[in-house]
Amino acid sequence: MAMSANTPHGLLLKNPSILKTSTTTAPAIHAFPITRATPKPISIKCSYSATVAAPPASASSQDRVFNFAAGPATLPENVLRKAESELYNWRGAGMSVMEMSHRGKEFLSIIQKAESDLRKLLDISDDYAVLFLQGGATTQFAGIPLNICKPEDPVDYIVTGSWGDKAFKEATKFCKPKVIWSGKSEKYTGIPSFDKLDQNPDARYLHICANETIHGVEFKDYPTPTNKHALLIADMSSNFCSKPVDVSKFGIIYAGAQKNVGPSGVTIVIIRKDLIGNAQEITPVMLDYKIHADNNSLYNTPPCYGIYMCGLVFEDLLAQGGLVEVEKKNMKKAQILYDAIDESKGFYRCPVEKSVRSLMNVPFTLEKSELEAEFVKEAAKEQMVQLKGHRSVGGMRASIYNAMPMAGVEKLVAFMKEFQAKHA
Amino acid sequence: MAMSANTPHGLLLKNPSILKTSTTTAPAIHAFPITRATPKPISIKCSYSATVAAPPASASSQDRVFNFAAGPATLPENVLRKAESELYNWRGAGMSVMEMSHRGKEFLSIIQKAESDLRKLLDISDDYAVLFLQGGATTQFAGIPLNICKPEDPVDYIVTGSWGDKAFKEATKFCKPKVIWSGKSEKYTGIPSFDKLDQNPDARYLHICANETIHGVEFKDYPTPTNKHALLIADMSSNFCSKPVDVSKFGIIYAGAQKNVGPSGVTIVIIRKDLIGNAQEITPVMLDYKIHADNNSLYNTPPCYGIYMCGLVFEDLLAQGGLVEVEKKNMKKAQILYDAIDESKGFYRCPVEKSVRSLMNVPFTLEKSELEAEFVKEAAKEQMVQLKGHRSVGGMRASIYNAMPMAGVEKLVAFMKEFQAKHA
Repeated sequence: MAMSANTPHGLLLKNPSILKTSTTTAPAIHAFPITRATPKPISIKCSYSATVAAPPASASSQDRVFNFAAGPATLPENVLRKAESELYNWRGAGMSVMEMSHRGKEFLSIIQKAESDLRKLLDISDDYAVLFLQGGATTQFAGIPLNICKPEDPVDYIVTGSWGDKAFKEATKFCKPKVIWSGKSEKYTGIPSFDKLDQNPDARYLHICANETIHGVEFKDYPTPTNKHALLIADMSSNFCSKPVDVSKFGIIYAGAQKNVGPSGVTIVIIRKDLIGNAQEITPVMLDYKIHADNNSLYNTPPCYGIYMCGLVFEDLLAQGGLVEVEKKNMKKAQILYDAIDESKGFYRCPVEKSVRSLMNVPFTLEKSELEAEFVKEAAKEQMVQLKGHRSVGGMRASIYNAMPMAGVEKLVAFMKEFQAKHA
Repeated sequence: MAMSANTPHGLLLKNPSILKTSTTTAPAIHAFPITRATPKPISIKCSYSATVAAPPASASSQDRVFNFAAGPATLPENVLRKAESELYNWRGAGMSVMEMSHRGKEFLSIIQKAESDLRKLLDISDDYAVLFLQGGATTQFAGIPLNICKPEDPVDYIVTGSWGDKAFKEATKFCKPKVIWSGKSEKYTGIPSFDKLDQNPDARYLHICANETIHGVEFKDYPTPTNKHALLIADMSSNFCSKPVDVSKFGIIYAGAQKNVGPSGVTIVIIRKDLIGNAQEITPVMLDYKIHADNNSLYNTPPCYGIYMCGLVFEDLLAQGGLVEVEKKNMKKAQILYDAIDESKGFYRCPVEKSVRSLMNVPFTLEKSELEAEFVKEAAKEQMVQLKGHRSVGGMRASIYNAMPMAGVEKLVAFMKEFQAKHA
């Protein structure tokens, strides 16, 4: 991807005064390593004061691409700017967040605020613990049966895509899971009617993947376990904090951070407290929820910088008005993209059933599949990157998480129309 | 810790031209969030060009503290400046490293260079895999027996401090470990003579913690398993890359990054390739070395930003001349600190046997223990922070990892002498 062309993408135009601001930052001069840098003193002419009054956008803003990656994914521009401004010295602490003792009062203030803001965003009650862990959702695929089940316990999995399938397979090591519905034969393009599910009345839990990142299938409502003592457990990695969720319906919600709420390396687990403390004997200590809950996620050194970044994102989501407002934006973005596909007279196709199309991950193909490589290549030239579909599905995929601005989706839609006009 | 006073600590004085450089950066103006910021246009007078020629040090450099934390710990200043300069837009990619797909060519170049540089630093042969994982050394406490042993296999642990003890306890879940030597009765102040070790001839491996972070005890040489088919396995979390190590003596070396080589959230495992592929059936997929080795640490989303930071540190260590040079600096730093303790006529005391004192973590107490709180408090006023000893040991602890500059140790020693003069 050659991405050096200066194509402003309009992100900052909501507030033109920002353009003035950006240029007050001098060009980056932090050579690496510092001890080898011997830049010449810079002489600033009087004419410089004139340019400050009516500056061009800063080079760095101009160079930003629209990143449609499925995760790690685009982060809010203001969050990145905030992180940049305090990377070297966090709020007068004299050190970076990356250097802080996880037991010092500075980092404690960071993790506690992150938890508190997440509780506000999702309206999480005190009946639930919020854990900041490592290892991705994949680690929780083992952690959940290890913590919730005895080896002989039956559990139910609804498999609506690759991630649900991986979760099921991992569970076979630690309990007796059963796939009670799979979308595989229809290439994972749908979600079952809940009333037709053949749930095991003795199942300890019912597991779903709330949004399948690869296949673009999203639960719009949630099934209820028939056994009223059974738990609903959801992997929400790729739609976490993209909309309000009634947490009280779930025993456990878990999510890797790297889609909607931060960089990779942080996994968030929201678990009803009464479920904690029953881990199987073979559970590695780092997979035991009790260890982490008893130690407020500080049993060992947590992924501090990632947690800090999640905290900045949570602040930003609250500042936007919370998840009700965030969902509205996400619906709007998804709608103009799906409309463009559906109104293309078959030039573009989305294989997913309309009622369960994901607001986050939009897979689509071209009727003329031989043009797909060109589509991806031409889009990259226009600073829209990571549009290639997952290798297991092919075609294209546009991931439009919280931090993807409307301008990015609008630009993609305009490009799609141009591309169609050129190749129809 | 109030750390707002402007006390330059002399770090930059090695190269005074840097002081001129720093001030070409305008004061931080990235308000948060950007969309709410409406700063006034800045008018720069002609006289500004004069101040550029002879500027004061930038405020942020002046404010930097000496951070003696045991981990997460201080990072090289030039690495932080580099990270700051490319946080928002990595080398023209149009995005932050935190936003990059882990399967994109940009991040692949980052992780591959990090691995290649680490191989150079430690002279790691192709017989070994290098894995970038998550979950800290604590996760490996389970991962090692799960991957190397059958449940009935005997293994030996030498326990020279809290971390070795934790590693042993976790192993009891997955094999038959035995503590063949423990320093507990002597409060973990020594290391055994290797010839007196009562090794089990059938042990699958011999485990050590190469440097005990809490107790300040460090192996200067390594024991050899009596069974020539047994492996030597070392947790090197707190002295990783602080000196050259003959990797070929070990079956596995593992380390959390957050002491010498990066932020928390990255765990590095160096494992002889022939040991991979024998995990017990109950091994969670994320703890199976084969999964990670077969996928070059990209089975699932790795902690990308942490790996990037480690890569910057590896570059910096190579630029310093590699680990031979790094060890010389570490020996010098440790020597002036231990000398100050030993020459204090008992005012300061280090409980650890001289021959095995850690170059990284220097625990010490005051003869007048009632002054210890004051010592820590007064030091913090002088911008030397995180000197309080671990809660299980008490007293003080100065962690002086690779990135702690000599100036920091010199300042601490000067402070210790002043403090002694005041209170002797």
